Amino acid sequence: MIRVIILGHGMVANHLAVGIERIKQGELEPYGVPLAEYKLPYSIEDIDIVASYDVDQSIVGKSIYYAAKKALDSNIDIPRTLRDVYIREGIHLGSLEGMPIEAVGIEDKLGLNDALNALVDEWREYKPDIILNIITTEDGSPFNTLAKIKYTLENGTSNGISASQAYALAAALYARQVNPVAFINGIPMAIANDDAIVRFYEESGAVVFGDDGATGATPITADILEHMHNRNRHVKFIVQFNIGGNNDFLALTIPEKNKMKEKTKSSIVQDILGYDAPHYIKPTGYLEPLGDKKFISMLLEYKTFNGLTDELYIAGRINDSPAMAGGLVDLIRLGKIAIDNDIWGTVYEVNAFFMKKPGPSSAKSVSKIVAYYNLLKWLRALNAITISEDIGVPIEKMDW
Amino acid sequence: MIRVIILGHGMVANHLAVGIERIKQGELEPYGVPLAEYKLPYSIEDIDIVASYDVDQSIVGKSIYYAAKKALDSNIDIPRTLRDVYIREGIHLGSLEGMPIEAVGIEDKLGLNDALNALVDEWREYKPDIILNIITTEDGSPFNTLAKIKYTLENGTSNGISASQAYALAAALYARQVNPVAFINGIPMAIANDDAIVRFYEESGAVVFGDDGATGATPITADILEHMHNRNRHVKFIVQFNIGGNNDFLALTIPEKNKMKEKTKSSIVQDILGYDAPHYIKPTGYLEPLGDKKFISMLLEYKTFNGLTDELYIAGRINDSPAMAGGLVDLIRLGKIAIDNDIWGTVYEVNAFFMKKPGPSSAKSVSKIVAYYNLLKWLRALNAITISEDIGVPIEKMDW
Amino acid sequence: MIRVIILGHGMVANHLAVGIERIKQGELEPYGVPLAEYKLPYSIEDIDIVASYDVDQSIVGKSIYYAAKKALDSNIDIPRTLRDVYIREGIHLGSLEGMPIEAVGIEDKLGLNDALNALVDEWREYKPDIILNIITTEDGSPFNTLAKIKYTLENGTSNGISASQAYALAAALYARQVNPVAFINGIPMAIANDDAIVRFYEESGAVVFGDDGATGATPITADILEHMHNRNRHVKFIVQFNIGGNNDFLALTIPEKNKMKEKTKSSIVQDILGYDAPHYIKPTGYLEPLGDKKFISMLLEYKTFNGLTDELYIAGRINDSPAMAGGLVDLIRLGKIAIDNDIWGTVYEVNAFFMKKPGPSSAKSVSKIVAYYNLLKWLRALNAITISEDIGVPIEKMDW
Amino acid sequence: MIRVIILGHGMVANHLAVGIERIKQGELEPYGVPLAEYKLPYSIEDIDIVASYDVDQSIVGKSIYYAAKKALDSNIDIPRTLRDVYIREGIHLGSLEGMPIEAVGIEDKLGLNDALNALVDEWREYKPDIILNIITTEDGSPFNTLAKIKYTLENGTSNGISASQAYALAAALYARQVNPVAFINGIPMAIANDDAIVRFYEESGAVVFGDDGATGATPITADILEHMHNRNRHVKFIVQFNIGGNNDFLALTIPEKNKMKEKTKSSIVQDILGYDAPHYIKPTGYLEPLGDKKFISMLLEYKTFNGLTDELYIAGRINDSPAMAGGLVDLIRLGKIAIDNDIWGTVYEVNAFFMKKPGPSSAKSVSKIVAYYNLLKWLRALNAITISEDIGVPIEKMDW
Repeated sequence: MIRVIILGHGMVANHLAVGIERIKQGELEPYGVPLAEYKLPYSIEDIDIVASYDVDQSIVGKSIYYAAKKALDSNIDIPRTLRDVYIREGIHLGSLEGMPIEAVGIEDKLGLNDALNALVDEWREYKPDIILNIITTEDGSPFNTLAKIKYTLENGTSNGISASQAYALAAALYARQVNPVAFINGIPMAIANDDAIVRFYEESGAVVFGDDGATGATPITADILEHMHNRNRHVKFIVQFNIGGNNDFLALTIPEKNKMKEKTKSSIVQDILGYDAPHYIKPTGYLEPLGDKKFISMLLEYKTFNGLTDELYIAGRINDSPAMAGGLVDLIRLGKIAIDNDIWGTVYEVNAFFMKKPGPSSAKSVSKIVAYYNLLKWLRALNAITISEDIGVPIEKMDW
Repeated sequence: MIRVIILGHGMVANHLAVGIERIKQGELEPYGVPLAEYKLPYSIEDIDIVASYDVDQSIVGKSIYYAAKKALDSNIDIPRTLRDVYIREGIHLGSLEGMPIEAVGIEDKLGLNDALNALVDEWREYKPDIILNIITTEDGSPFNTLAKIKYTLENGTSNGISASQAYALAAALYARQVNPVAFINGIPMAIANDDAIVRFYEESGAVVFGDDGATGATPITADILEHMHNRNRHVKFIVQFNIGGNNDFLALTIPEKNKMKEKTKSSIVQDILGYDAPHYIKPTGYLEPLGDKKFISMLLEYKTFNGLTDELYIAGRINDSPAMAGGLVDLIRLGKIAIDNDIWGTVYEVNAFFMKKPGPSSAKSVSKIVAYYNLLKWLRALNAITISEDIGVPIEKMDW
Repeated sequence: MIRVIILGHGMVANHLAVGIERIKQGELEPYGVPLAEYKLPYSIEDIDIVASYDVDQSIVGKSIYYAAKKALDSNIDIPRTLRDVYIREGIHLGSLEGMPIEAVGIEDKLGLNDALNALVDEWREYKPDIILNIITTEDGSPFNTLAKIKYTLENGTSNGISASQAYALAAALYARQVNPVAFINGIPMAIANDDAIVRFYEESGAVVFGDDGATGATPITADILEHMHNRNRHVKFIVQFNIGGNNDFLALTIPEKNKMKEKTKSSIVQDILGYDAPHYIKPTGYLEPLGDKKFISMLLEYKTFNGLTDELYIAGRINDSPAMAGGLVDLIRLGKIAIDNDIWGTVYEVNAFFMKKPGPSSAKSVSKIVAYYNLLKWLRALNAITISEDIGVPIEKMDW
Repeated sequence: MIRVIILGHGMVANHLAVGIERIKQGELEPYGVPLAEYKLPYSIEDIDIVASYDVDQSIVGKSIYYAAKKALDSNIDIPRTLRDVYIREGIHLGSLEGMPIEAVGIEDKLGLNDALNALVDEWREYKPDIILNIITTEDGSPFNTLAKIKYTLENGTSNGISASQAYALAAALYARQVNPVAFINGIPMAIANDDAIVRFYEESGAVVFGDDGATGATPITADILEHMHNRNRHVKFIVQFNIGGNNDFLALTIPEKNKMKEKTKSSIVQDILGYDAPHYIKPTGYLEPLGDKKFISMLLEYKTFNGLTDELYIAGRINDSPAMAGGLVDLIRLGKIAIDNDIWGTVYEVNAFFMKKPGPSSAKSVSKIVAYYNLLKWLRALNAITISEDIGVPIEKMDW
C-alpha cells in the first residue's frame, strides 16, 4: 500500500484519481503509465489516495467524486469509491491570484507557521508516503540557502514564499516528526532544483522528485533533438507553439507565470544538441474551447550533408492532464521505492525522465529515450526490476 | 587512407563524392555525418573514392565530375578533383528494367562468370577497402544456402540473380584473392539479411553492412515509436506516406520493387512496440518536380492515460540522397575499422543504427537512439573512441 | 413532403437517415447541410426516406434502425422512427465483387429485364421523388449513345452494365411510367457525365445530379487552387494523399475502382489553374482503424513574386460519410425543386458545387466557392431563395 | 507610365523594386501579381519607381541598388537600373522607436509643418501618381474628424500623429497643390479606415487604398472560413500562429504594435462566418533565422453533419515581403486606373481583395475569392478589362 496526498485538485488530480480507480476495477488498461509493463515492487493497485487539498472554495469540503464529476467529460464513468475521499482546504499564498476562482487558504486565518503545523497534524492521521504537488503554475524564487529555509520556519513569515514552497516545507516537517515521505513536484516552481530544499530533505529523511512534469511537446522535442544530434544534423532553428484551454494555460496568460514555464522548457536545446540553436519554445496562448486537449505545433529546420537543408513539421493534439497523471502513477511508485531504499534528497535518474527541468540544479537535460534507459538501469541496480523478465524489449536494449 | 569503390552512380553517389571533396577542401561542415564529432581512427579526409560503376550508358566512361555536374543543383560547386575519377561499366542483370534509362551491363557480353572475374581483376588494380552498393532499388530473393552461392559461382548462371547479389559475390571473391573488404549494401535487397552471404563473407575474410540505408521517415518513425513505447502509450495506428521525384521513387512505381521496400520498413512496428500496431507504411508515389527532396507525412494515434486518445502529425521535406550519403561517410570508416579488427561476416551494432532492415536476418529492429548508443559502446569496446574525450554529451549518456 | 429512396445502404445512408431524423426531432443542428441557413421551398423536415436497397445479405430485409445500430458509433442515439423503414434487395451486377461481403442481387434470379421491371413496380408503391445512388464505388464505362441504352433495355443484357447504370435506367423507366424523378449519383460512375443518360433523362422527364459527391480533400484542394489562381501564384506541384478505413477505401484497394476515383479527382487542377500543374492526387490506401474518419494530407509548392518559392501543408481528419450525407440533404431538396420547375436532364449549377466530377461531360470544374455563389444565383433565378432575407452574408456577396 | 514613390524602404520595397525591374528585363515571370494574366490599361512595364523614403540612416542617401544588395539573398541578381533611384530622408515621428535602427526624420529638424511642405516640394519634382506606404508597423489612433486633420495641418503639431498619418496628409496636400494621387497604405495603421482621411481625400482629389496588405495566413484563413461557411460547417475554434524573422515581426514584439495587428486580423471571423467563432489569431513571435520566410500554423475544428467533429491543420512557409510586393504591383496599376476615372476617397472593391482590414471603416470583410470576383466586376464596369478576352477562366465564373 502506498498512501498518497494530492496538493492542488485540478484536472490532473481528477484524471489521476479516476484513472487509478478504473485500473483497480479492471475496466481500463494502464496505457500512459510508462513502467506499467514492468513488475515493480508496487503495483498500480497498491496506490491509495487518502486526501486531496485545494483552495478553490467551490470544491473544498467536497469529495473527489464530486469534483471529478464536475470537471471531466460526461462519458467518463466516475468510480463511486471516490465518494469517500475528501478535498480539504490547503495553502493559498496567492497562488491563484489573477484567476477567476474564489480562493481561500488556511494560512489566511492561521498565519503560515500555524498553517504548516496544522497540515503536519492532519497528515499525522493520513500517514502519507507520497505528497504530490500539482497546484496551478505559480511564480516564485528558490530559497537557495538552508539559512533562508530555517529563518522561514522560525519566523513563519509568508513573505515571498509560494504555496509550493510552503507545502514542500510542511512535507519535510512531516518527515522529521512522523514518517519518511516523497514529495513530487509536478509544476515549474524550483523545488528539486532548489539546492537548499534538496539539502533540507536529505537532513529530514525525505526525497523530492521534480520539477515540472514533462507531458506534451517538450519530451517529443527532446527526443527529436536527440535524433538530430545522433546524425550530426545542424539545427538552424526550432519553433514550438502550444495552446490549450485548461486552467494551466489560463494561468500562463499571466506574464510572470509564463516566464517561469519558458525557462524550464528551453534548457533542453543546449543540453541535448551541445549548442544553443535559435529557438522559440514557449506556451503560446489560451483558448477555452481547446479544453484540456492542447494543440502543439513545431517547425525544425536543419542542415544535412553536402550543405542542403531539410524541414520537419510536427503538430499534435495531446490530452494534457492525462499525460501528466500517467507519469504520476509511476512517480508515486518510484517515490515509495526510494523511501524503502533510504534514498534521500533527490534522484536525477527519476527526474531526468519524468520532468521538464530535472533537479538537482546542476543537472543537464538529456533526451527522454536516453533518460528512460538510465531509469531502468537505476531500477535494476536497486533490484526493483530484473533483467530476466521478458518485457518485449530486444535484449540489446537491456544490456547496459 | 580508405580506398572506396562505388556501385551505382546515382544521386547518392554524386552527393557522397562531392560532399567528401568539399569537406576535404574545408568549404563544408560535416553536417549529416553522424560520428563526425568523434575522433575515430579514420577521418573523413582519409576517404578516397577510386572508381564508380554503373550501367547507364549516358555516364559510363565519364568522370564523376561530369555526372555530378549533370545531376546536382547548379548552385553546388562541383570540385575539380572529381575529373580524375571515372565511372566504369558494371553489372546490370535487369536491375534498371522498366526505367527510362539505356542500360548495358558487362555480363551482357561476357556472361556472369567472366563478368565477376573481370570485376575482380579491375579491383586488383583499384585495391578497394570498401565496396559500396547503392544501385537503384531492385527485386530479388536471398540465396539462403551456401550451396546456392557455390552453385552460382561454379556455373556462372545469372538465372534469378540480382545485380546486388552478383556484386556481393564479386566482393567476396576479391577478398579471397586480393584483400579483405567491407561490402556496404545501401539498398533493400537482402545481403546482410541473407545468412548464406554472411556465412560466405565470414569464410572469405569480408564483412557486409546492410540492408537498406535508413534515411528519412523510417528512422524518425522508429524513434517516435520508442517514445511511445517508453510511456506505454498504446498506438492505435500509424500512417506514413512518402513521395519523391528521384530515380529511387520512380523505380518503386514498379510494383515488385515497392513490395521489397515495404517489407524492410514495417518490421520496426512490432520490434519496437512489442505488438503489431495497425500501420500503413510504404513509399507512396512518384512526382518528378519533388526531385530528391521527398515529402513525408505521418499520422499516429494512441491511447493515453484514463482512456483518452491523442494524435500526432508529422510532415517533412527531406533531401533523400544527402541523408544517405552522410551515413555512408561513417559506414565507410566503420567498414575499415571492422577490417582492421578482423571482424568478418556482419556487425549488428553498425547495421542497427544505419539500416532500415539491419542484418543478420534474426536481428530485431530497435529505435535509432538506442542503436546509436549501442554503436558508441561497440566502438568503445574496440578502442575506436574513448570515453575521456569531451564530446558535449552529458556523462550520463556515456555510462553504458 | 419529399419521398426518397436510397440505393446502397452503407455508412452514408445510415448517417443520412439518422441525421435527418435527429434534426426533425430537434436534437441536432443542421450543421454540414450547406443551404440550411436559407429558406428554401422545402425544409429538411419535409424529407421522408421511404425505403433503402442493398445487396448485403446481412442487412437486406432488416430496418434502417437495425443497420444504423450496427454501423454507427455507440454514442449516437438511433431514432426509433427508423424501425419502420426497411432495406430491400437491390441490384448487384458484381458491384461488391472482391469485397468481404455476401452479396446477392435481384437480377441473380430474375435477369436484368425483369429486375428493372420489379424495381419500377416496387417504386410504383413507394412513389419516390428522389432516388439516391450511394452504393460502394464500382467500375464501368458510360453508355455514351442512346442506342446502347435502348439496346440494353430491349435485350435485358447485363453484359458490362454496372449496378449504378441499371439503377439509373430503372429510375428513367419509373419517370416514364409513374412520376418525374431526380436521380442523384453520389459515386464516381459516369451518370451525369454520360451524355446518353442525360439525353435519355430529358426524354423521360427525369433529372440527374452527379457524379461523385465532393466530400473531403478535393473541395478544399479546389478552393486552395482558386486561392492560388487569384494571386497568379504558379503552382509547381501538388501532392494529396488520403486514407480511410471504411468500405469505400477498402473498395479502392481494388485497382480498377481506384483508377475510377483518380480520374474524377484530378480534373480540377487544369480546370481551375488553367494549366496542368504536376500533381499526385489519389486515394492512397486503406487502414481499418481509421474507420470513417479519413486522414488527408497535402503539400503544395508554388512560385510567388520575385522568383521565390512558398510551401503549404494541409492535413486533416474528416468524417467521410457525414460530409457526403450533409450535402445529400440539400441535393434531395434541390432535386425536388428541379422537378417542380420542370427541369430535365442535368443541372450544372448544382453539380458544380456538390460533385467532384460535375456533369454534363463537357463541363469544367470550378472552385467550390465560385460554384456556391453560382448555385445561389441559380436558386434566385428560380425564386427558390430571395435576396431580401437576411442570411448573415455581406451584401457585396449577394450582388451577383 | 505610372510614377511611384515608396515610403519605407524595407524588404517589401526591395522586392517590389527588384521584381518590377526583372519583369521589365524579361528575366522573371510575373507570378504573384494577381491580375498579371488580364490585359489592364497599364502593364507592369509601365511602372516607374522614382524615389523611396526612409529614416534608417544606414540607407538614406543611398541607391535602391545599394539597399537591395544589402537586404536580399545573394542569389538574386539586383538590376543595375536601380543604381539611379535614391532613398531620401522621410518622416520618423517615432515609428521605429524600440527597434535596433538609428533613425532620423526630416521633422526632427524642421518641425512637422515644414516637413510636410518640404515633402510636397520634393514631390512637385518627382510628380508621383502613386505614393506607397510600407513603413514598419507602428501604432496610432485615427483622426476620426476632419476638424482634427485641419487642426493638425494648421498648427503643425506632431503630437500623437504617426508617420503614416503625416505621409497621408502630405499626399493629400500634394493632390491639392500639384496632381491627383493614389495613396496605398500597406500597414495596419487606420488610413482607409479613418473616415476623416477618406473624406479629406475626396475633397482633395485623391484616393486611398488600405489598410494592411493581406499577404500570408490571413487570406488563406478567410478563404478556408468561406469554405466552411459554404457548407454550414460550424467552426468550434480557430488557432492561427505565425512567426517570422524580418523587421515587421521584430516590431510586433513591441506590445502596442502587436495589438494593432491583432485587430486587423481577427475581424474576418465574424464577418465571414456570421458568428464569432472562438479564435486565437495573432502574430506570435520573432525568431531571426526564419528571415522573411515566415512560418504559419493553423488548427480549425468544426462540427459536420450528424453531430461529428472534423479537424483541419494547415502549416506553411511563406515569403512575407514578396507576397506583399506582388499585390502592390497591381495596387499601383489600380491606383492609376482610379485616378484616370476620377474616383476619389477609397474603393472598397480594391481594398476587400488586397487588404486585411479593408476600408472604409463601415466595410465588412468578405472571403478573398469572393472579393476577387467582385474586383473583376468593378474593373469590367470601368471597362478596364473585357469579358471577351480569353483568360482561362470558365465562363461561369465571369458571368456576374
